[in-house]
Formats: sequence, structure tokens, C-alpha cells
Amino acid sequence: MTERQSVTLSDVAAVAGVSVSTASRALNGTGRVSAETRERIEGAARRLEFRPNALAQSLALGRSRTVAILTDRATNTFSMPVVIGAAGYLGAQEQAALVCDARLNRRDMAERIGELRARRIDGVVVVGDGLQGLTRSVTTEFTVPVSYAFTLSDDDDDAMFIPDNAGAGRIAAEHLLGLGRTRIVHVTAAGDDIAVRQRADGLLRTLDAAGTGLTGEVLYGTWRESWGREAAQRVVDEAWDVDAVFCGNDHIARGVESALVAAGRRVPDDVALIGVDNWEGLILDQSTQHLTTIDVGLAAMGEAAAAHVLAGEERPGVHYQPPTLIVGDTSA
Amino acid sequence: MTERQSVTLSDVAAVAGVSVSTASRALNGTGRVSAETRERIEGAARRLEFRPNALAQSLALGRSRTVAILTDRATNTFSMPVVIGAAGYLGAQEQAALVCDARLNRRDMAERIGELRARRIDGVVVVGDGLQGLTRSVTTEFTVPVSYAFTLSDDDDDAMFIPDNAGAGRIAAEHLLGLGRTRIVHVTAAGDDIAVRQRADGLLRTLDAAGTGLTGEVLYGTWRESWGREAAQRVVDEAWDVDAVFCGNDHIARGVESALVAAGRRVPDDVALIGVDNWEGLILDQSTQHLTTIDVGLAAMGEAAAAHVLAGEERPGVHYQPPTLIVGDTSA
Repeated sequence: MTERQSVTLSDVAAVAGVSVSTASRALNGTGRVSAETRERIEGAARRLEFRPNALAQSLALGRSRTVAILTDRATNTFSMPVVIGAAGYLGAQEQAALVCDARLNRRDMAERIGELRARRIDGVVVVGDGLQGLTRSVTTEFTVPVSYAFTLSDDDDDAMFIPDNAGAGRIAAEHLLGLGRTRIVHVTAAGDDIAVRQRADGLLRTLDAAGTGLTGEVLYGTWRESWGREAAQRVVDEAWDVDAVFCGNDHIARGVESALVAAGRRVPDDVALIGVDNWEGLILDQSTQHLTTIDVGLAAMGEAAAAHVLAGEERPGVHYQPPTLIVGDTSA
Repeated sequence: MTERQSVTLSDVAAVAGVSVSTASRALNGTGRVSAETRERIEGAARRLEFRPNALAQSLALGRSRTVAILTDRATNTFSMPVVIGAAGYLGAQEQAALVCDARLNRRDMAERIGELRARRIDGVVVVGDGLQGLTRSVTTEFTVPVSYAFTLSDDDDDAMFIPDNAGAGRIAAEHLLGLGRTRIVHVTAAGDDIAVRQRADGLLRTLDAAGTGLTGEVLYGTWRESWGREAAQRVVDEAWDVDAVFCGNDHIARGVESALVAAGRRVPDDVALIGVDNWEGLILDQSTQHLTTIDVGLAAMGEAAAAHVLAGEERPGVHYQPPTLIVGDTSA
């Protein structure tokens, strides 16, 4: 196969029987060209599949059609879908993503910001790795739009896109109440994690509003499966009256399930289970869902932050990504 | 905070006491400038932190400093680390990644290729989702370098970066033999999957070379945990004489472990276990490793494919990413 040469403006002008400058004026919509001539030139451009040099266009517009994605560690488990969501959205809009990963590139942020300015990027999406700690705002370092995904910045006027953890807790409670479950236990990670507190808060508020309340105190531990087993063992040993467990994440839910089953409890007949994260859907990609879970929408969060930057909107403040309930066998 | 204005070439020229054209010649290394003058100009550029307009430079060089990443579905579990590896490597080299995801963008490939040409991209990395089927080669559609990651193209002259599945099987066998295990069973997915066949092949060749051979036939099934449980139950029921199981992936290993433990076998004392994928490391990010596993290096594969494109090298053919053994409790 021979390489196809690019069609030039001269080719279009020759085919249309006009000068190059007339062809340029017609296609750029600048200057006066008669309707008939414009039609002839546009027809020639279409037939030849003429594409103007995008680089030259970018220079003329002072835009690079490139958005920077600043992140501490793009390969972090939870950050990865956010970065991919942002980069994929940008690509669909014909915008390139300049991924600046501090793990790969140890030069300091000021240096990096200088490079991005020189490159005339059209926007910046800062991707964090959750709600532990605030990200230093870099918005005023740029004249182009900046948004923050999966992290909160230290400037309230920034546009931030984060999971709706309270909503996840609320959805879990509503689902279990809808199934007629009223003796609900909550097993989760450490209480100094904002996501843990928000999920517990959403659950408790909804149960309180329904007049049900929580069964026992919240069981705080770690994000690990082993903690789920340990917590469920305690529930069994102390003979808590329970018909459902909302777990802080899917790993905990898995541990809770194995300990309950080992103790002779049936899931979901005796005890219904819900986790958070949707690892089954994300990782196993399987057709049937075992664990009922809540997807916090990491990729969608990245898409929303990228869309915000491209739209050049001014919508400061926190934007919560709506979570999605995914019903599996454990709450059927 | 006030926005800092970009330093221009005129600023540098003024500080150095030369004309703009002399400053330009000195900094671009074009034309004749005395050593002393060049030093003065370079010193001024350094002091002022002058950065030439990257867009204008790109246009002059005919390069966009953008590499396209073509993928069917960037959010696919296994493709995601490859795309992130490639995009992160490019970012560290100050190259943007234009992620073209067919899932997000349903226009046909020819249309997309036309856009990429117009954009004067510097290279293309095609990211697949494994070894099921060949990817149609698009190399001759471009004048810039093209590489393929996590897929094989239908043109042997392409540069392809894929996992060393046979190496994974070999490493598993060597590790188990090194622990003195000689009665080794293999539980894996369906035999029509190339990765399955290559992993089994690497295992069998190494065991045969050691004079040990495999215990029983290869147990082919699915990638699921439930298949691991079922296969291990058969091994237990039929009283196979076994002291180790190499599993096609971590999910299978997990199922094998739970069935063995339920049957009273001790792991690793009675039976050692190895999986493939390193989900524990990738997902749980935990400090202690339970399951011994093999990481096939998905992110490194994306980095290698991106590096190949940037280097503009001519190294056609298949490049195997070396796998890494990660030792956990199940083979201690």
C-alpha cells in the first residue's frame, strides 16, 4: 500500500479554478467570496477530503487542543478509572490528554506548570486519589479552566467532582428497607476516613428517617476482607439480631459473607449484603452479579471534570457524582 | 494572585542587548552568532525562565508532540493499565496522548485516521484487550511510527508488545520446583484462549525438562472463582496426590484455596498455590501479600509500546514483556 499524500489547499484551489487566497478565504469564512464561488470551493474540498493542517489552525487560534491531566499516581487503583474517563472523554472531543504523573516525573509542580503554559494547553484536570486530605489549588496558576476530580482542593471556588458517599449510604438503606429488612448492621473501615463517615452518615440518616435506626454500633475497622470476617464473627458470637449488613466496600462484604455462611446463616435469605465499589463489574466483567454493590462512578467523574473544562463553564463548588445501585444475588 | 505573563523572545533580546532575530538565531542554533553573544543570550533566557511558544515550535518542526492511543474500549479491566502506562510514559516525555476510544466514539476508523493525519500526530499506539483474535494493522495508514500493545496485529512486520505467558508458566514451575514441590496440578480457563495455552505450555515444558511432569491432565474451565472451587473439589474427591496447584488466574486460585481449605488441606503446608494477574497488588494495594501470583506487566507493556513509538525505532516483531513473580503466603 502506498502512503497517501495529504490534499493541500492548492489542490482544492486548482480543482475549483480559483486562487489559493480565494480558497482560503472561502473555507475560513473570512473576506468576501460570492456564494457561487464558495459553493464550488466547498464542493471541491469535500470531494478531495481536504483537511486543513490542524497544527496551523491551532496556532492561529492560540489553542493546542490539549488538556493536561495532573495526577500524583495515575496507576493508583481508584485514580486509574478517573484518568481513563477524562482522557477518553477528551479523545472523543478530539482533545489530547497530557498526563502529568508525579510518580513518573519527579520534577516539581512549578516546573511542570511552566511547561504546560508554554504548551498553551486548553485546560487542566487535576485527578486525586480520594478524600483523604486536600489538594493544593493550582487554578490561579493558569488562565485556562481547571477542574478537580476525585479530590477536594483547598479553594472552595474551584470546580470539584467527587463521589456522593452520603448518597451511597442512602441508596443502600433505601434498597434494604424496600426489601423489608429492618435490622441493619454497618461494617466499615476507620472513622477518620471521610468516605467512611459520609457513607455511614447517609445510611444512618435514612434509617433514622424511616424510624428503623441502626442495629448495634457502627463496626469500624479496615477496608480488608479479614476485617469483614472478624466483624461478622463478632455479630454471630454476640448473637446480634440482624437481617442485613451494609459494608463499607466489597472486600469487607466478601469477608462478612464467608463468616456468615461458615456460621450457618443463609445469604440473602437470613441476611442480605451490600458492598461499595463494584469490583465484580469492574474486574470480573462477568454476566451475573453475585454481590449487591454500589458503583460510585469513577470513570463518569473523570468525564464530568473533563467536560467542565472543555465547556469553559463557571460552576465552582462541589459536584457530586450520582452513585448507582447494582443488585446481585446477595440482596435478591 | 495575579497571572504571570509569559516571557517573550523580545524580553530576552532586550535583556541581552541584541536584536530579536539575533536572539532567535542563538536560541534555535541557526545562523552565526559569536560564542560570547550566544552565552549572554542563553544566560538571559535562563534568568528570565524564557520558554519558547511550544505551539509555534511544533509547527516549525511539523510535529504536534501528540501520540494517538487507539483502543476499542479503554475502560476494559485489562486494557486500562496498558493505556495508563502508555499515557503516563508519554506525559513524562512531554508528549500528549490522544485517546481514541471506539466505545466513546463510534465513527469508523477511516474517519478517525483522517483526523489524526490532519492533526500531525507523532505516532500511534494501538492498545488491544488480549490475545483473542488479531487486530487489523493500521501501520501503513500513517507515515509516523505505530506500535501495538496487548494485542497481535495481522502484519508480522509490526512492532507488538504482549505478555510473556509461556514465561509466566515457566516461572511458576521453577518457583514450585524450587520449593521441592513435584506433584503439581494445573487449573485454568478454556483451551481455545491463547493465554491459557501459552501458560500451560510454559508450565509443562519446564516440568518435563525437570523430569517431574504434570500431575493429572490440565483442568480446563473458565476464569471464574467458581470453576476453581469445582476443579479443586474434583482433585479432592478423586484423591489426586498433589502438593501444588498453578492456577490460570487469581480468581481460580481463590476458588481452589477455599475448596482445599474446606476439605481440610493446609495452604501452603500441604498444597502451595500460585495464580496470575496480581489483582491483590493492583487492587488492594496492601502491604502483605496473601496469594503468590505472577504480574504480567500490563502498565510496563504500555510504556514499552509508547517508548518504541517515541524512539522511532525499527524493531518489528513480537516483544514479550517479562513477567514478575510475587511471592505471598500461599507458597511461603
